[in-house]
Amino acid sequence: MRKLYIVLLILIVVSCTSESNNENKKSMSEVPAVSTEVDKKVAALISEMTLEEKVGQMTQITLDVITKGDNQYSSSQPYQLDSALVHKAIHTYKVGSILNTPGVPLSRQDWYSTIKTFQDEAAKTPRQIPIIYGIDAIHGVNYTIGATLFPQQIGLAATFNKDLVKEAAKISAYETRASSIPWNFSPVLGLGRNPLWPRLWETFGEDVYLGKTMGVAMVEGYQGTLGDPNTVASCMKHYLGYSVPLSGKDRTPAWIPERELRQYFLPAFKEAVDAGSITLMINSGEINGVPVHASKFLLTDVLRGELGFEGVAVTDWADINYLHTRHKVAETIKDAIKMSVNAGIDMSMVPHDFEFAELLVELVKEGSVSEERINSAVSRILKVKMQLGLFENPVTNPKDYPDFGSDKFAAVSKRAALESFTLLKNKDNILPLEKGTKILVTGPTANTMRSLNGGWSYNWQGSEADNYAKDMNTISEAFTNFGNATFKQGVSFEGENNINAAVKAAKESDVILLCLGENSYTETPGNTNSILMPKDQIELAKALSKTGKKIVLVLLEGRPIIFNEIEPLVDAVFMGYLPGNYGADALVDLLYGIENPSGRLPINYPKHPHAFVNYNHKHSDNIAVPNYYESDYDQQYEFGDGMSYTNFEYSDLSLSADEMDEDGSITVSVKVTNTGKRKGKEAVLLFISDLYASITPEVRALKGYEKILLEAGASRKVSFTITKDELSFVNEKLETVAEPGDFEITIRDLKKKIKLK
Amino acid sequence: MRKLYIVLLILIVVSCTSESNNENKKSMSEVPAVSTEVDKKVAALISEMTLEEKVGQMTQITLDVITKGDNQYSSSQPYQLDSALVHKAIHTYKVGSILNTPGVPLSRQDWYSTIKTFQDEAAKTPRQIPIIYGIDAIHGVNYTIGATLFPQQIGLAATFNKDLVKEAAKISAYETRASSIPWNFSPVLGLGRNPLWPRLWETFGEDVYLGKTMGVAMVEGYQGTLGDPNTVASCMKHYLGYSVPLSGKDRTPAWIPERELRQYFLPAFKEAVDAGSITLMINSGEINGVPVHASKFLLTDVLRGELGFEGVAVTDWADINYLHTRHKVAETIKDAIKMSVNAGIDMSMVPHDFEFAELLVELVKEGSVSEERINSAVSRILKVKMQLGLFENPVTNPKDYPDFGSDKFAAVSKRAALESFTLLKNKDNILPLEKGTKILVTGPTANTMRSLNGGWSYNWQGSEADNYAKDMNTISEAFTNFGNATFKQGVSFEGENNINAAVKAAKESDVILLCLGENSYTETPGNTNSILMPKDQIELAKALSKTGKKIVLVLLEGRPIIFNEIEPLVDAVFMGYLPGNYGADALVDLLYGIENPSGRLPINYPKHPHAFVNYNHKHSDNIAVPNYYESDYDQQYEFGDGMSYTNFEYSDLSLSADEMDEDGSITVSVKVTNTGKRKGKEAVLLFISDLYASITPEVRALKGYEKILLEAGASRKVSFTITKDELSFVNEKLETVAEPGDFEITIRDLKKKIKLK
Repeated sequence: MRKLYIVLLILIVVSCTSESNNENKKSMSEVPAVSTEVDKKVAALISEMTLEEKVGQMTQITLDVITKGDNQYSSSQPYQLDSALVHKAIHTYKVGSILNTPGVPLSRQDWYSTIKTFQDEAAKTPRQIPIIYGIDAIHGVNYTIGATLFPQQIGLAATFNKDLVKEAAKISAYETRASSIPWNFSPVLGLGRNPLWPRLWETFGEDVYLGKTMGVAMVEGYQGTLGDPNTVASCMKHYLGYSVPLSGKDRTPAWIPERELRQYFLPAFKEAVDAGSITLMINSGEINGVPVHASKFLLTDVLRGELGFEGVAVTDWADINYLHTRHKVAETIKDAIKMSVNAGIDMSMVPHDFEFAELLVELVKEGSVSEERINSAVSRILKVKMQLGLFENPVTNPKDYPDFGSDKFAAVSKRAALESFTLLKNKDNILPLEKGTKILVTGPTANTMRSLNGGWSYNWQGSEADNYAKDMNTISEAFTNFGNATFKQGVSFEGENNINAAVKAAKESDVILLCLGENSYTETPGNTNSILMPKDQIELAKALSKTGKKIVLVLLEGRPIIFNEIEPLVDAVFMGYLPGNYGADALVDLLYGIENPSGRLPINYPKHPHAFVNYNHKHSDNIAVPNYYESDYDQQYEFGDGMSYTNFEYSDLSLSADEMDEDGSITVSVKVTNTGKRKGKEAVLLFISDLYASITPEVRALKGYEKILLEAGASRKVSFTITKDELSFVNEKLETVAEPGDFEITIRDLKKKIKLK
Repeated sequence: MRKLYIVLLILIVVSCTSESNNENKKSMSEVPAVSTEVDKKVAALISEMTLEEKVGQMTQITLDVITKGDNQYSSSQPYQLDSALVHKAIHTYKVGSILNTPGVPLSRQDWYSTIKTFQDEAAKTPRQIPIIYGIDAIHGVNYTIGATLFPQQIGLAATFNKDLVKEAAKISAYETRASSIPWNFSPVLGLGRNPLWPRLWETFGEDVYLGKTMGVAMVEGYQGTLGDPNTVASCMKHYLGYSVPLSGKDRTPAWIPERELRQYFLPAFKEAVDAGSITLMINSGEINGVPVHASKFLLTDVLRGELGFEGVAVTDWADINYLHTRHKVAETIKDAIKMSVNAGIDMSMVPHDFEFAELLVELVKEGSVSEERINSAVSRILKVKMQLGLFENPVTNPKDYPDFGSDKFAAVSKRAALESFTLLKNKDNILPLEKGTKILVTGPTANTMRSLNGGWSYNWQGSEADNYAKDMNTISEAFTNFGNATFKQGVSFEGENNINAAVKAAKESDVILLCLGENSYTETPGNTNSILMPKDQIELAKALSKTGKKIVLVLLEGRPIIFNEIEPLVDAVFMGYLPGNYGADALVDLLYGIENPSGRLPINYPKHPHAFVNYNHKHSDNIAVPNYYESDYDQQYEFGDGMSYTNFEYSDLSLSADEMDEDGSITVSVKVTNTGKRKGKEAVLLFISDLYASITPEVRALKGYEKILLEAGASRKVSFTITKDELSFVNEKLETVAEPGDFEITIRDLKKKIKLK
């Protein structure tokens, strides 16, 4: 039998190679065909499988399809599996994967019994291939009751603390496995470069370097050592270029020239592939007129041929069908399936029926899709299931995860929130407040867990957070518990307007904590026609300002809501992002100086309605002109901004050399001293400017960062290594190159030039 | 000597060919090398010229450089040439071209004597090559006192009347020649697809088909028969992709994938080249990180190789220097010159010094720029000068142009204004008004010629229009003259706020004519941080609305100012664009029903601050969702909108066939009947939808239009021919293709399907 395996394996490798047809790109044949034990087992299994079994492995359905309820789009509550439908899915259609929730979060015990039911059924099938269950556990296992919910990705990015992000991901993986689920659709590796996009907060912000390094930290945190029952498969999403739709609205067309696609959007995926992420989800949108789900260039030539990704590429929700119904590149659903499978998808998140499986069998029988393409997809799926240990241990048991929802996990979440809050204004050092200061807490985000958690929290839109997280503190609760605070809502997202009561209470307080921002949302329900601060929030701020009391503004929001009209009226500004279940507790500690803020903005915060520019813009984005022109680069706050209650002084910027060749490196060091009276954390940021280049250089770009803790009076030397990678960009020929010439290194206000020979 | 000419000519042709190095593109060698008499003369002249003379021909300076005044950036007033500087320019540096104004408009006699001075000096040089003088005469010869000023291009587009646009261009050419100037930097062929861009109004709007057909009409109107002293050289600008900067601000970076560059932005240039336009100006910006002035791909491979353009490519203002100072792709000015000349520019609009000429001579002597490249550029320049008849008749004399500023020309301008005004709302048929209706005219655009003319009017920013066009009517003057109208400004662009007086006057009137919009601007001074209607204009509208009087809103503006907050408060809306010197008179005729409106919007008019989508969007731009989502395509007004005082009924949509092959055609006919009580003009618009395609198809796209006049009760059959050109798009391989399948033809609400076999 051994010979047969090897022959089959060769066939599979050959079939993979044949998928890459771009001669200018690194071809699949360059990927070494190491024949591991797992590969051999996969090949053996495949050799026994029927076409229907293979296609079943490529089919992913949503839980609603197999629960009791009106139809495949919903589940009755309380949620119950429908055993006939489960049988149909697993035995008749042989589905390999199931995802999602029945509309509400489940207890760990419910997850366990649900997934155990599936695996028990799968064990009765001829090949006994376990189901792989997938979930969007994007800030903790957010569909499990009692789970530890962390700040959303944009907040994690603001910590500029990779170790903390990795630790949060590790806990999320543990709690996901405690919910019997081995596959997490996270992290988002797209860049939040369009402030309108309703999923900006699901990204690590606008910067390439921050995004790719945070992405690797999260992948490492999730996956640990594959096969360890405390870890999960990560899923890099959404490949590629999902985050910058032209109109700003989710899943609408993007224009991304290939050079920019490679310079800005590809690196985070490349690094995460190199870090070993074993699955990937595809962008639902179109780039330059081509839906990514139909792009053989992106899904095979670049992803497999160039990036060497050997894991599973899963579609996003119903996206093969949308090739026909929405994008209109396929005249029928069947054509859409043919197009997408031939382009290179491995698994279809169908998710509502079995048509994909039926039609794909037809397509293979008709010769429109090769069995080689099917074998390639199924091998990847089987390999991931083996790598996760599902064949040996198809369902993890909550009882083996005693730390689920523990205080020590909560402490990590609170630490992440503490390090994410970004202090952007602190006029006359109004903050921190003295203990005993009488505070009015007000505003629409002040008394809801929704604005702390955002979407993907307990349910898709996060709309049930106040129910399921009722034991957690809202901002008003946290401050009232701490003492000497009163709460008046002022205005609410439901349209309540009681500004007078808030103004009256403000007059009896020392300081106003004004909590503005957004309600929870994600995806298309989060599309908006305006990111200007809503009128009622503006009105509340103006009315409160007239009391003459000091105002501390806290922004809880998934994208930068433009508020320049009231910015001059407030004394301090904290950007809170979506800090998770312990965000309010963290805010108490920060406002009273129990903790010292250390977050930095991972995006530019626009000041004006129609002047959006990223921080790493081109020189021509900022044309110096008389002040009646509005041509200048003028942001409310800039990427990297963020203050502390102490003062950090930078000195002694030094270089190991001021010239290097392509294979060389330069060590850059700087001394950071805490010259203030409190200990504090500081994110040290290194920027590089290419002074002249064949592609117009960016004004500056982040190329290194490190978060350090310094006691009052203490100093530390921080070092960064610069190689040609930090000096490279994608040139007109689409090659990543470092061109000889001068570069400027900037750390805070210190600058040095280096030369690449 | 004859043999030598032929040898030289061959050398030149060979040198042209060698500039194209893209193997996948149509190469220069396919352009037929027809050896005309002009070509022979050019070759003979070149063979005699020194390098310095050649480089001088490639040098264009601005008038300020050779006038009396503090420095080369300004002229003393009254304006005077400095004969030493003139001598230096023409004799020492042998410059071939001069442009622009001394900051103020000149009389025809001043233009004549100025340009005659240059030509007289040029006649004293060894080769006696005439200077070519160039000017931005974009809506009439707008820098000549007393010229006929037309609506700006966006208004001309709104007429949907190609014949009228051609007639306007013909008059502009005549009056430009009456000002002794033979070269007009017009038309703009970029598409106005970003509502923020401060030059949107200089385009023919957002649509490819409208833009390219209007562009051809204008080129034909300007150029007529080349050599005719009543015509000028047109200048296609700004090649390529200038109109859609990412941030919306002028001359800032654009992201345009090559497919979209070819599908949306290239066609208007291709058609204008085919129509014979002999000069072209280059985009000042960068596309995908490459400044167009440094792009050999765009300036040589595409422009020469694919489009077959044989005329002169001139830089925009100082743009070679900006490769060094702003774009930072060149380490020195000298590198910038080398880069740009080698990329394919023929003439540098330097414009403030002679460094270009000095350094280019050095570059040729050093071998960094080939003399062949120089010869190719200079041949094109000399050929244009010959084609314009400048060698025989270097300066036209105003006395030969008796129709300059005549009533018959004014009538054409007024006709263009009449056909451009676009009626977008007419609640309860409030319009037309009865004669004798008492009108209050109010608002910041009501009493200024600046808002009627926009930028490039008398001076760069149009700021002196009230001085130089004081004999023309502002809206308040036109209505007051007509009778029974009063004027109260309400609010002004200078900050005056006298809303109470306007409200008081409104109470004593029957109807309020509320004139809102923008002051004049162009280029970077027109950059804006917001296109939301300014607060004082909103306030004025709201205050007037409270009087209960009917409000007719007139918008005079260069881009769509968002006013959804007050749209429900007004009864009628006229989009006026920038209608030129006779716009106010036209508005009187339209409001009182002396004329019937017939303009149609050439752009989408956005309703919301952050929901910009072009009309020919993709299906995925409009995701049907419950109404609390803001994912739908929701515009204030849409491309093609525009009402009449009469009613046009469409019927009998018929096809000559419902199938065609690639070489075939289908004639589409429709019957249009004026069923109302007034005669009127109607723009009949034909849209085509490709139902499925390999590139996501647009929801619909304009593919034909015709403006017809119908008496009350009259009918007319209008026919369009559809060939594969109307069914084509640019596919993923960058080929323009028509794919077999079904297409839907729509004329107003009538639809028919056709099939391409």
